[in-house]
Formats: sequence, structure tokens, C-alpha cells
Amino acid sequence: MKTLPLQRNVGFLKSALTGIGGFHTTEDIVAWLRATPVERPQVVNPIPFDALVDWSFRETGGDLVHRSGKFFRVTGLRVRTDLGPRPQWEQPIIDQPEIGILGIIAREFDGVLHLLMQAKMEPGNPLGVQLTPTVQATRSNYTQVHQGTRPLYLDHFLERGHARVLVDQLQWEHGSAFLRKRNRNMVIEINEDLPLEPGFHWLTLGQVKNLMRQPNLVSMDTRTVVACMNLVDARKSDSLDGLDREQAGEFAGAVLDSFASQEAASTDEEVMSWLTGLKVGHHLGLEHIGLSGLSGWKRTDREIRPDGGGFFTVIAVDVKSASREVVRWTQPMIAAGEVGLVGFLTTKIDGVLHALVRARVEPGSADTITLGPTVQSALGGEGSGGDGGHSEYFELVKNAADATVRYSCLQSEEGGRFYHVVSDYRIVDVDGAHQLELPPECLWLSFRQMQEMVRYGLLGVEARSLLSCLSFA
Amino acid sequence: MKTLPLQRNVGFLKSALTGIGGFHTTEDIVAWLRATPVERPQVVNPIPFDALVDWSFRETGGDLVHRSGKFFRVTGLRVRTDLGPRPQWEQPIIDQPEIGILGIIAREFDGVLHLLMQAKMEPGNPLGVQLTPTVQATRSNYTQVHQGTRPLYLDHFLERGHARVLVDQLQWEHGSAFLRKRNRNMVIEINEDLPLEPGFHWLTLGQVKNLMRQPNLVSMDTRTVVACMNLVDARKSDSLDGLDREQAGEFAGAVLDSFASQEAASTDEEVMSWLTGLKVGHHLGLEHIGLSGLSGWKRTDREIRPDGGGFFTVIAVDVKSASREVVRWTQPMIAAGEVGLVGFLTTKIDGVLHALVRARVEPGSADTITLGPTVQSALGGEGSGGDGGHSEYFELVKNAADATVRYSCLQSEEGGRFYHVVSDYRIVDVDGAHQLELPPECLWLSFRQMQEMVRYGLLGVEARSLLSCLSFA
Repeated sequence: MKTLPLQRNVGFLKSALTGIGGFHTTEDIVAWLRATPVERPQVVNPIPFDALVDWSFRETGGDLVHRSGKFFRVTGLRVRTDLGPRPQWEQPIIDQPEIGILGIIAREFDGVLHLLMQAKMEPGNPLGVQLTPTVQATRSNYTQVHQGTRPLYLDHFLERGHARVLVDQLQWEHGSAFLRKRNRNMVIEINEDLPLEPGFHWLTLGQVKNLMRQPNLVSMDTRTVVACMNLVDARKSDSLDGLDREQAGEFAGAVLDSFASQEAASTDEEVMSWLTGLKVGHHLGLEHIGLSGLSGWKRTDREIRPDGGGFFTVIAVDVKSASREVVRWTQPMIAAGEVGLVGFLTTKIDGVLHALVRARVEPGSADTITLGPTVQSALGGEGSGGDGGHSEYFELVKNAADATVRYSCLQSEEGGRFYHVVSDYRIVDVDGAHQLELPPECLWLSFRQMQEMVRYGLLGVEARSLLSCLSFA
Repeated sequence: MKTLPLQRNVGFLKSALTGIGGFHTTEDIVAWLRATPVERPQVVNPIPFDALVDWSFRETGGDLVHRSGKFFRVTGLRVRTDLGPRPQWEQPIIDQPEIGILGIIAREFDGVLHLLMQAKMEPGNPLGVQLTPTVQATRSNYTQVHQGTRPLYLDHFLERGHARVLVDQLQWEHGSAFLRKRNRNMVIEINEDLPLEPGFHWLTLGQVKNLMRQPNLVSMDTRTVVACMNLVDARKSDSLDGLDREQAGEFAGAVLDSFASQEAASTDEEVMSWLTGLKVGHHLGLEHIGLSGLSGWKRTDREIRPDGGGFFTVIAVDVKSASREVVRWTQPMIAAGEVGLVGFLTTKIDGVLHALVRARVEPGSADTITLGPTVQSALGGEGSGGDGGHSEYFELVKNAADATVRYSCLQSEEGGRFYHVVSDYRIVDVDGAHQLELPPECLWLSFRQMQEMVRYGLLGVEARSLLSCLSFA
């Protein structure tokens, strides 16, 4: 007879509360990550589209496609909706229908769960190398489309044997840039020796989270998997009795209390009703018009960019790498003109910490509505689902008084598709913020309620990514 | 500060345990339901397709459509999948993309929640009249497409004022006959006097459930809303201390214990991982080929039927009614050749009752996989997602020894679209059944785990319908 044991969730929590790992100091890991690009250099250069190898614009429709028909495709969409600042717009979008795996192997050492993390380069990473999950595999990866080597440790996820599943959830990627792209977010726990390949290290969850206090060191892929880890399972009446509140800090304690609490400003049924009402009350209409059908966008020899501001651009890059499976390749990428802002407003309501969640319609929204953070301008445009600096909370988050900023750090989006797309991820805690008058698409949720939304794939990647940055050690 | 109060769930539970209502005996309600067709007769006759008024087969594609373009459309699909007995088949399907409302108004009388239920006729009901929710409204209903009167009490759901939301969930209808049709399942609690319109009565949940022990008296719409009612919220550590186990009966007690228990044969993460693996591991390919593109089907002047067995047929009916919003109309309907079988195998595993859930790929599956009961042949065909008498558990459920049959009763599918489509809904409890070797698409779930699946729209209508039939009073 198995239950989701108390101890198992406390396992994630204990690891999150452990800032000193069994193998390395966090400083060593930082030094290792910073040294890796020097040891195994990767050179990435933007190039003209006509210098792309095996990629070209199709004669019909103008989509940017790979010769094999695999990987992904950049196409054009006309979007219509009745939620958000724009009723209609057109934009490029990445179509990559396959489901990849983002997997972390976990193992207990000295009673504390450690995560097998990798130093990995991606062409779009601002610093070249980032701390990533044990495995990131697209289906192309493991069906060997691009002739590279099979990702290390992948077989542990495909044939799990006696490994214990701690997380296994389908999660959506950026609905503003992907046409319904999902990844399988996994954490499996093993209880056996594993050969430690070069480029891999065992870290506690607390160490991984502490690294998220530094700009651009931890990949988006890591952040989304970490967000799926249930630190405190309120359904199991998990207790925080063992928590050293002084060590964790006041705000971190409030976050954990909110994960553990059954109290909330809205009942769970009211939250579900709010979401149901938004899904029923709004529409999302997509029309596939191809890249060449886009109006309001201009294609030069080096980029596809919007006539006005907002959104993102499509570019091409040449990559020379000594660490990737393939040593040289070219590919299209998504770039952004400016640093974005991704932020949660938080506040205590009757003693329980809540975050302000905003519902958006994004072209890649699976079921019309994507739940996201209070403010989101990661990919520039209001039209692409973000706030573009115009929402009522944007200034409040951007220009918050230092004393209210609980977290603020530059983090980048996934470096395999996004080229130096960086946002200020921040959490701003404002007393009395729950007295703000809210538009119908905003609601205060407790952290327990957000965790449940994560579990069922209802919280967008920006919100998940931001939640994962909360550290407790 | 609001929480989902203990008392509120106990509210559903208390009502479910109350077999004697504040207003009527259950016998009175049966008499009332049986008398209604006599008082307000409805005559339904199958007719040739060319006698349909305002419905016709389109020249291009052959779809059966309404002149207004509204209501619904019968079209043709080619389906490909790698889960289930057939890799490919073609079938008619109902395309009705709008989201309707199935809503029940609840109110406490003498400390017990009562539900405002309606006696309503639908052309496909075997007995003409059934006990339905307070409101069933398609979007056509409330936007007045068919010139009828606006459904009574609808405004309580559209503008809820101070009503309390107890249930508000999007739930899928039959994936074997509908192309992704959802309804909004709602229960709202009011605390004010309400005019009682003719055709409506207040019943306890226990009374409604007891009526489900009689064939075809309670509509599918009622059953799906009832299935969304969380009797025991294990997340809140709801207690069953007040339960009179003798009155409820041994099996009913085991069901309630399973709702309340944190114990389960698989952890919640293992269940989620099983579902994730099935979604990732299987595919559903749909090709819209139009009604006239179907091979393996024959259209006569009165029906569209498969060459072999299985599946269902499409027919046309003429309806004369004194109780519907429109007094006479014609429409296409789905008919079935034989009585179906919808069944759960249950068994105790380490003292906790579990039901055997089977994952199916149905053409209308929202995300490839629909979770359903152990056995399901409601709409005839293995190809349409059911078991068609061929699965390993069909005989076990169909020919179960009387002593193991906890529930067995004929129930019909929704009478607005399905013409006398009736199945034997049954629950068969077999000691030691968990020792059966399971195919990968089957898993034993506790009732708490099934309830959570319901909450997030992951359990198909047949399974929900069957769960709702469990009675405790």
C-alpha cells in the first residue's frame, strides 16, 4: 500500500531548505558554470536568412522550415480575441507539435534529496552555459533526427525500471511564441549508483534555487521542472513544524505557510468558477496565414520584425559548438528588443500570502485562457499576450520601493529557441494590495492554489518560472 | 476570509444521506414523473430524412445541417489511433462547438441542502420525461436561436448576485459521438425565496440518487452534475464520523471511506504519470471527410448505419410537444441498436475501495485520452471507443454473480441528441480483482482520485454518470 508519503514531499522541502550540498559549495558551482564556456567554447553569430543551411522560406505561404520537415517551423497567425488590449493582431509563431522531455534525476545522499544537474550551452543563453535538468530531449533528439548523440541519462526516463516518479506532468511553453508546445516535466528518484558523466553535478534543491538569485545562470527548463515540485502538500496536511523560520526568512516562511494553508481569499470552487467563466466568456480565433501572409511585419535579410514596437523578432544564427551533440549548425531563433518584466504582486490576506494571477489569451493558449503572473512583457508585445507596459500593475511592479521587492533577478527564456530573451523576474509584496480594484481577469490565489493549477497544467511558463525562483535556504 | 468550509461539503454529503426530503416522498416524485407525460404529451416519431424541416444534407461534403447554421451538424470523420482494437475507422459525429449550461439551484431547508429539479421531456427519453437539472441551456437557448421561450431560472446562473458557487466545472460529453462538446456543470446555492414554477420540485441529493435506482427516470444531465458534487473533500480532512454506516450500507460506506482516504494503490503522482505517459505515448489523428466521404456506412432514406455492427445510427425524428419551448420540430438524432453496458469493476485494496479505470482514445477526446469505466459499450462500437463486448472485463461485468453486483440499472444518454440510447450501468465488486493482470491502459483508482479527475475535466461522461448513481440513503 502506497500513499504519497509525507516524507516524500518533505523530501523536496528538506532539499529546498538545504543550501549546502553534499558535494559542492554553491560558489564552486558558480565557478564551474562560468568556466565551462571557456573550456568548451560555443560561438553564436546572427547571420542573414540566406546563410541558413537546410532552412529556407517555403515558396507557398513563406514559412521558415527545415529541409527534413522536422525540428520546428516558423509560420504566421492571425489572432482574434475579446480579452486583452487588442482584438486582433498578426504575428509569427513557432510550430513544434512534439512533446519533449525535461527530466531531473534525484537521489538521496545523507538523507537529503540531490538533483543531477547539467552545465549546458544553448545558442540563445546570455552567458553561454546554464544549469539545466539532467535531460532535455526533443522527440527529434531521441529519434536521432539530427544525427547527434543520444542525450545522456535519457534511458532512465524512457525505461524507468525501479525509479520512483516524483513529478510527471505535461506543461505548456510560451503561448505567445509557441503554437501549443508542451514538455513532459519529470523528476524520478533513483536509489542506485549512477556514473557521473562530465558536465553533471549533484545539487540540493536549495542550491539550485540559490543559483536563481544570480542572473541567467539557471535555465528556463530547470525553472519549469522545479516549479512542478510540490514542496508542501496541503492535501496531506504536511506540517512545517520543522521549519527554521529565522533561517528561511520571513517572506520565505510566508510562502511556505501559504503552500500549507487551506485558507484562501477565494474558495477553490470560486477559483475554478472564475476560470470556467473566463473560458466560456472569451474566445480565441486562430487563422493560419503563413509567414508571407503577415501584415504589420517586415522581412529584411536578417530579421522579421514588427512595424511598430512590441512582440519579438525572428532572426537566424550560426552556432559553432564543442559541447552540443552537433558541432556546427544554423537555425532560426526568436529575439527580443528589450528586457522584459515578469512579476507577481503578492500580499497577505488575513495572514495568508496571496499572489495576483492574471488570465490572458495567448495564441498558443491550450483552452483559450492562460493563467500568468500579474505582469508579463517577456516577449515585448501586449498583442502577444503580455502587458507591454500598459497594464495597471506594470508601474507598480517595475518601480516598486526596494523594501517591497522580495525577488528581482534577470532570467532568460529557453536558449534553444530564444536568443538573449531576458526579463527582470520579480516579486513585489505590497501591504494592502488586495484592496486594489481588480479587472475580472485578475484574482488573488494562495500558493497552495497556484500549486494545484501547476499540477493540472493550468499555469503558464512565465508564472511557473517565477514561482520556482523562490528560495528558502 | 473564506475557506471551502467543511460544512459545505458535508452539505452535499448530508443531503446525499437524506432519503426523505422536506417536501415530497420519493414515491410522490416517481408518480409525478410518470404522470407528466400524460398531462403534457410529447409524440416522437422517426421520419425519413427528407421529411426534416430546415435540416438537409449539404451538397458539398454531405453534412447534415440546419438551415440557420446553428444547433449542431452531423459530419464524418476518419479516425486514426494506436490505442484500442482498431487502428483506423470512419464514423459520423456530432459537431456542436458551443458550451451549454447544466445548472442546479440548491437551497437549505431544515438544515439539509435541497436541489431544484425539473420534470422535463426530451425526444430521445425512453419514458418521455426525466428528472433534470434546474436549467439546461445551450447557447442557442439563451441567445434565442429557435424562437422559443428563455429557460426558466437561467438568469440565476448568468447573473449570480449573492448566490454561492458550489460547482462550476467544464465537463466533456460523449467523445464517441460528439466532436469535443463540453457543458458547464454548475450548482449554485441561494438563500432566498424563489418562485416554484410548475414542473419543478425541491429534492434532497439522497432522493435524486435513490431515483437512479429506477430505470431511465433521471437524466444524464442530472447525473453528470451530481458527479461533480464533492461529497467528501479529503483535502480538507473531511470526517465521516457522523455517518450511520448501518443505514448507508456496507458498500456505500466503503465508497465514502474511499472518497475520504489518502490511501491508494498508486500514489497521486503515479496516477498523473500513468496519464501523462498515455497522452505522450499515443496519438489521435482526425480527418474531416464529411458525411458523404464515409466508407463502411450506408445512408438509406431513414438512417445512416454502419455496414457491420457496432457504433450507432443517425436517424431523424418528428417531435410534437406541449411542454418544450417550441411545440413542434424535427431533428436528427443518434440511435443505438442494442442495450449497452457501462460498468466499473471495484475491489478493496488494503481495505480501500478502488475502481478500475480504463483509458480510451475517442474521436472527441480533448487531449488524446479519455478516462472511462472498466467497460463501456454504450454507443455500440469498439471502434467508437467502447469495448464492444470484446474486452477482457466485459464478460466479468456482464455476467457477474448477483452477490457481487452493487448497482445495476438501465440509464439513458442525453435525450436531446440520443434516441432511446440505453445502457445497463453497473458496478461489480469482486474480491481480489486487483490481482488481475492489467493492460497498460487500465489502472485502479481510489474514489478520491477519481473525484479529483472529475474536478479537472479528465473523467469521461460515462464514468461520471456511473459514479453519480452511487446512493447512500
